[in-house]
Amino acid sequence: MKYCGECGNPVEQRVPQGDNRTRDICTVCEVIHYTNPRIVAGTIPVWKNQVLLCRRAIEPRYGYWTLPAGFMENAESTTEAAIRETWEEAMARVSVQGLYTMISVPHIDQVHLFFRAVLVDGTFGAGPESLETRLFTEADIPWDEISFPTVKRTLELYFEDRKQADYPLHVSDIRRPLKT
Amino acid sequence: MKYCGECGNPVEQRVPQGDNRTRDICTVCEVIHYTNPRIVAGTIPVWKNQVLLCRRAIEPRYGYWTLPAGFMENAESTTEAAIRETWEEAMARVSVQGLYTMISVPHIDQVHLFFRAVLVDGTFGAGPESLETRLFTEADIPWDEISFPTVKRTLELYFEDRKQADYPLHVSDIRRPLKT
Repeated sequence: MKYCGECGNPVEQRVPQGDNRTRDICTVCEVIHYTNPRIVAGTIPVWKNQVLLCRRAIEPRYGYWTLPAGFMENAESTTEAAIRETWEEAMARVSVQGLYTMISVPHIDQVHLFFRAVLVDGTFGAGPESLETRLFTEADIPWDEISFPTVKRTLELYFEDRKQADYPLHVSDIRRPLKT
Repeated sequence: MKYCGECGNPVEQRVPQGDNRTRDICTVCEVIHYTNPRIVAGTIPVWKNQVLLCRRAIEPRYGYWTLPAGFMENAESTTEAAIRETWEEAMARVSVQGLYTMISVPHIDQVHLFFRAVLVDGTFGAGPESLETRLFTEADIPWDEISFPTVKRTLELYFEDRKQADYPLHVSDIRRPLKT
């Protein structure tokens, strides 16, 4: 950020009084512009023992497979965001079963939330951000072509927990740079 | 937002191509300025069957009692944010036991995360944002002076679950305006 969103004058980077972090502060109106991590919300959409994945039609990771997920918007809940993203990317209606992974990704200021979900009627398609979508059995998951580390970890945990049919919440971090 | 943070020129509110929501878009450089919900992270700090609460020294809700919590910062994990806020507001070191409530508050674009935690050594104090901090038994909780609905709900759930000594994750929403 170089200019103040409130008055259009230049900002400077300094620690405000009573704070301990460098912020963008307007040199004229003195408004402090905070930035905070963003939430990515998505689902693990399941149908008859298979998981629905989307092949990305956008960068980053064009052509790689992902779980449907995207940035949570203002004025919605985490669950609504996950359902909306599943609809937008995979044209699938889902019933959400519960939060399954919450993975902080501090080096890119994100928190990824994946909810377990089941397809309502087994239908799906490809939204504008997907080249194609497909149901995969565990044996067919394209592990070498998974888009993001949080998606890979979520799928690994899911198939592991599925052996016991017990799906506790997993809270973790991924601090390494993008690399699957 | 009235001005572009990148170039300082006026922004306009319109729906970008391929999007379905109104965004702030620069009239000159055309950068789209997205805004997203913020995460508030905190703990339920427990010591010998009592819960540590902080009396707020800042607005909103000056003088009301709260669980230690605050806005998650960039470059940290959700757990780190909860531990840091507990230190800053209650000067208490805690060991985190797990995520307990995740409450979306869509009308103020926030998601509140509370982790169960135990005080490491039983010591605590009052940070600059607290007038005082105190350990409360369930019977002594000042229910009529609790700062925020998410804090009240989290405490209610906690004492209810404590009867069974079983603390599942609770995901919910609070859509009503601020009122305890």
